[in-house]
Amino acid sequence: MNRPILLAALVVFALAARADEGMWTFDNFPAKKVQQKYRFAPDAQWLNEAQLSSVRLAGGCSGRFVSPDGLVMTNHHCAHSCIEQLSTMEKDFVALGFFAPSAENEVKCPEIELNQLVQISDVTARIQGATKGLKPGKEFNDKRKAAMATAERECAGGDDKLRCDVVELYHGGQYSLYRYKRFQDVRLVFAPEFAIAFFGGDPDNFNFPRYDLDVSFIRAYENDKPARTEHYFKWSPAGAKDGDLTFVSGNPGGTDRELTMAELQYQRDFALPARLFDLAQYRGALTMYTARSPEDYRVGEKDLFYVENSYKALKGRFEALVSPTLWNQKAERERALRAKVNGRPALRKKYGSAWDDVAKAVAMYQPRRIEYKYVELGSGFNSPLYRIARDLLRGTEELQKPNEQRLREYTDARLPQLKQRLFSQAPIYEQFELFKLSYGLTKLREELGADHPFVKKVLGKRSPQEVAQDLVKSKLYDPKVREQLWQGGRDAVQASTDPMIELAKLVDADARPLRKWHDEEVETLETSGAERIAAAKFELEGKSNYPDATFTPRLSYGAVKGFMENGQMVEPFTTMAGAFDRATGRDPFKLPDSWLRANENKQIDGSTPFNFCTTNDIIGGNSGSPVFDKDRQIVGLVFDGNIHSLGGDYGFDATLNRTVAVHSAALLEALDHIYGAKRIVAELKGAPASSSASGSK
Amino acid sequence: MNRPILLAALVVFALAARADEGMWTFDNFPAKKVQQKYRFAPDAQWLNEAQLSSVRLAGGCSGRFVSPDGLVMTNHHCAHSCIEQLSTMEKDFVALGFFAPSAENEVKCPEIELNQLVQISDVTARIQGATKGLKPGKEFNDKRKAAMATAERECAGGDDKLRCDVVELYHGGQYSLYRYKRFQDVRLVFAPEFAIAFFGGDPDNFNFPRYDLDVSFIRAYENDKPARTEHYFKWSPAGAKDGDLTFVSGNPGGTDRELTMAELQYQRDFALPARLFDLAQYRGALTMYTARSPEDYRVGEKDLFYVENSYKALKGRFEALVSPTLWNQKAERERALRAKVNGRPALRKKYGSAWDDVAKAVAMYQPRRIEYKYVELGSGFNSPLYRIARDLLRGTEELQKPNEQRLREYTDARLPQLKQRLFSQAPIYEQFELFKLSYGLTKLREELGADHPFVKKVLGKRSPQEVAQDLVKSKLYDPKVREQLWQGGRDAVQASTDPMIELAKLVDADARPLRKWHDEEVETLETSGAERIAAAKFELEGKSNYPDATFTPRLSYGAVKGFMENGQMVEPFTTMAGAFDRATGRDPFKLPDSWLRANENKQIDGSTPFNFCTTNDIIGGNSGSPVFDKDRQIVGLVFDGNIHSLGGDYGFDATLNRTVAVHSAALLEALDHIYGAKRIVAELKGAPASSSASGSK
Repeated sequence: MNRPILLAALVVFALAARADEGMWTFDNFPAKKVQQKYRFAPDAQWLNEAQLSSVRLAGGCSGRFVSPDGLVMTNHHCAHSCIEQLSTMEKDFVALGFFAPSAENEVKCPEIELNQLVQISDVTARIQGATKGLKPGKEFNDKRKAAMATAERECAGGDDKLRCDVVELYHGGQYSLYRYKRFQDVRLVFAPEFAIAFFGGDPDNFNFPRYDLDVSFIRAYENDKPARTEHYFKWSPAGAKDGDLTFVSGNPGGTDRELTMAELQYQRDFALPARLFDLAQYRGALTMYTARSPEDYRVGEKDLFYVENSYKALKGRFEALVSPTLWNQKAERERALRAKVNGRPALRKKYGSAWDDVAKAVAMYQPRRIEYKYVELGSGFNSPLYRIARDLLRGTEELQKPNEQRLREYTDARLPQLKQRLFSQAPIYEQFELFKLSYGLTKLREELGADHPFVKKVLGKRSPQEVAQDLVKSKLYDPKVREQLWQGGRDAVQASTDPMIELAKLVDADARPLRKWHDEEVETLETSGAERIAAAKFELEGKSNYPDATFTPRLSYGAVKGFMENGQMVEPFTTMAGAFDRATGRDPFKLPDSWLRANENKQIDGSTPFNFCTTNDIIGGNSGSPVFDKDRQIVGLVFDGNIHSLGGDYGFDATLNRTVAVHSAALLEALDHIYGAKRIVAELKGAPASSSASGSK
Repeated sequence: MNRPILLAALVVFALAARADEGMWTFDNFPAKKVQQKYRFAPDAQWLNEAQLSSVRLAGGCSGRFVSPDGLVMTNHHCAHSCIEQLSTMEKDFVALGFFAPSAENEVKCPEIELNQLVQISDVTARIQGATKGLKPGKEFNDKRKAAMATAERECAGGDDKLRCDVVELYHGGQYSLYRYKRFQDVRLVFAPEFAIAFFGGDPDNFNFPRYDLDVSFIRAYENDKPARTEHYFKWSPAGAKDGDLTFVSGNPGGTDRELTMAELQYQRDFALPARLFDLAQYRGALTMYTARSPEDYRVGEKDLFYVENSYKALKGRFEALVSPTLWNQKAERERALRAKVNGRPALRKKYGSAWDDVAKAVAMYQPRRIEYKYVELGSGFNSPLYRIARDLLRGTEELQKPNEQRLREYTDARLPQLKQRLFSQAPIYEQFELFKLSYGLTKLREELGADHPFVKKVLGKRSPQEVAQDLVKSKLYDPKVREQLWQGGRDAVQASTDPMIELAKLVDADARPLRKWHDEEVETLETSGAERIAAAKFELEGKSNYPDATFTPRLSYGAVKGFMENGQMVEPFTTMAGAFDRATGRDPFKLPDSWLRANENKQIDGSTPFNFCTTNDIIGGNSGSPVFDKDRQIVGLVFDGNIHSLGGDYGFDATLNRTVAVHSAALLEALDHIYGAKRIVAELKGAPASSSASGSK
């Protein structure tokens, strides 16, 4: 293969030099490395405090407790759904911002679940042992899933306030059981206007310098009262300075740094392009949909944000994968590892075929990927109504079975989150459903072809628009209807003639066999290969590395530091005054009135550091993570990475990859002098709980 | 590099076995090969007649004379622009179809130019000689372009009725001078409704079986009278049958079968993905734009067709390039060729570095590709108004220089086509311009970044929408205004304060240096490398191969033949009755009223063959090509390839790749029994000219 160096090393991934790389589990943090470089080593108690003070937003973000009364700081874009769900045509909190002047005004978010990690235990022997000696296939799948479900059920002991997940680390090299405390009563306390939370919009997204106040405050409740949270982060009086050691604890969603070349090639040639084509087209359509009227914008804006954010992030990933430098480094690393394995007969026997097994699994999936996408994954039914119908159908069916025989997503450990979504009071908008379903059904016909039996089954001789018009007559908008069906169980759902339930039934007849094929044939082959590759790496390289991210709590270390771009130094800080310089008065560079007013009244100290960047190793899912110093004091709030961080899925380039955060000083400055949110400021500064959180009770 | 076989040879390109492969120039047709396989060898006179009876639509299609009175048959989609340009809100010929009952009713197409190839001469020595001994760079570029322009000017002798193009074949291995007769007065005679021309729409596009009447008739005029065209194709009484030998003469737009691996890798990793991302998003937006109102649909529908067609075609190309089978075959072929070259000192000295030069050129372009796209290629100013402004600005500047020093697109040979477009009466719609410019300027900001100096220059502190609103106040909608500016020359254009001209001036300050860099540094290096690679191939493999397609007249041979798909034989014919079976009454499977009526009245013979497929090797640009038999009688009209033909850009798979055509019998059946277009039928059947084309004069 002739691979000329086309990219003059645009992105050089430091696979060898580890720098500040790593998304470490709390039970395997490299304190010595940190000591060597930064002359500070966190001890066990320090790590435990940091872990217990951090939370995961189960929907896909991170946060941290910032008071003993359950107050949680996260990003605006992490509470975006909640803010939108609480809004109406008359009162749009996304545009206007939200502030509960007292505890009574804090409003429940329909779908936020918080998880606080309280215990980690190693269950590798138990999970791997369940499939010992088994070939990939049905029994392998059944035994493995059963072992996981059983471990999880035993751990939670039927208590919905606990959440236990078996976490697959090192692609199956290690299985850990994570026990979380679960909070499902979470209320919105404060959010600024979208215009400043996401100042610069899509053009500035993933860029630095940056000027965003991407913050929101929510509060965990228990028994209708603010939760007592003894572990929380305190505020740093000084904030971060250039060169300071910084820690970030959060939940990086996923990385692919340890994938095989076969898997990477699949991503480069099939998965990523397909996803980007989809996102690009949907983005075009959604931009026009939201431009139709202010109400269409209000309803569709969160999806647009999600689509544009995903598109930019995945485009960055794709660009990293087509960088020959990265590709060749990875290929060489795999080649060298396989050569080592094949060089020792004992290793060769155990692990030699592992890479080929993974490649076979990928090759097996590839030709059916589009069918899987539309039939099992439901990409043509791009709508919350469909997801509800599907969960009602499958959930009530799966609940007939013992916990350990169910599909993973319907095991006891996952039911509380499922039910929260299923019975959510969040509004669903018929016109928006109609748009999305028409769009999705058209793509379904396009990608599978008009003559595909599944397409014929779903559309018949009708147009996608006609089918969508029927579907939106569903009664599943109403959470009470859903709850009745759920309570009625399988029989009630099977008897339902709701059009969306009917669709789910129609689909499931084809989807179930596909899912079975995927889980039993593809997944077990890939898992069995990946577990052996991980074992080979442990045997040859030891366990000094961190596992790929899995949307579970991790800790990273780094320092406040700028970077060189096009031969120029990008300084690590911006100031609040900089936002006014960048503003054009036109969306997305239009500052909200509150800021303009405060500035006119000279209430803002323009020299206050606004955003800053650090060398911490993060990725999507880390949004809302605290940035804290060695005294575990908050110096910032992670909300993004710079443009060079987008290849971080595959590797970490210490010279360019940066975490982007809101500075702690700007947070206080804005809360205090722009929003007059004195009670939050007091709570952050550690005023007694009674006078802040429950002040007015 | 570990490259597992992910695709179970979905597409196996027969690089070795040549089968019916090849888009042959008329002066190098492999008559012997055809004789061997099909026991028929076209002689020189046969080839000459076929060449002279075929025409090129300079905008990007093919056609053929079908009567001695200048009647030309091509596809509906080749005359789509004309049909749309002649339509109004009140009378939409795209939806309704068009038929001129007499010659007086034939209406002039504003922008169609026909080219009839009358002479081919070899100018390789002259063009290559001009750069002999020169290193890639400014002088190389100047001398080469001057030699081409001079050859063209001498050939046409200042006669606008002639068009002479130097054609670069074998990527510079051979230069031919093509002299065409040029027709610019071309009138619309007949077009069916879009609903049957493109029955099945995007879902069926590039598929077979198929049921499309993708035909239109236009007529070449000279001196305001139908042109006398002594060379034309006659109609076959029987039409094509399974297994029949078929010829296709047309103008395949471009193939990349002889590119180097460096160029292919650039296509796979950068060019194709970027183009697909763009098309996908624009498609999403345009679908929503055209759904706003019937008039928005009428105005935007042609663009939507173009975008969806391009998206599907390029997606097929991308999928071919990520097929490891194809990739590895190509890599191996290049490796073997280079090994042969390097194995002989004399060859190594002459050609050894050629591949590296091409790779260097690609590597030089890659990091500046986005800048080039927006600054020189104007991708952010996605509008005919901008193209007009740019042509006025650059054209009047370039005309100050002698012919041989101008940019290629403003040389004498190209002026008649340029002026036809520039002074076209085709309407330009302000609302659609506004949409496209807002869209394009937003992408410009996205892709170059809000802080790029060019973006700041174009947008300032305004939003893309505001800038677009200014631009559409341009007066360039009016062809008279354009003509005045063109006549006024450089001074008039420079003095103009028209907002679109002002934009063109602003852009050109940055675009000129970029273009110079591209032409002098990138292009000359690539050309110099490619010329040497071609020479090495000639030296080692002889000249028995065909050159990559270049949108110039070519001839291919093949046979009527079905193909196997998913284990099932796809028969090579459909029938007109099949269209009624496939119809759902819903767009794009809704037959026009004329067909439903004719069917109710039992006027249609349902057993008439409708569409068919052959093994001819074609590609985009061949649309409208005649399919004819060994007696040069018309048996069909090419309008598409099957889905497997989409990888045809890189190679030809004889087992799957098929040309898709309308059958000659269906054309007559529809003209006669559905549209009552008796005068066309008579003309096709060879009634005397006076009684058909000019019958009513």
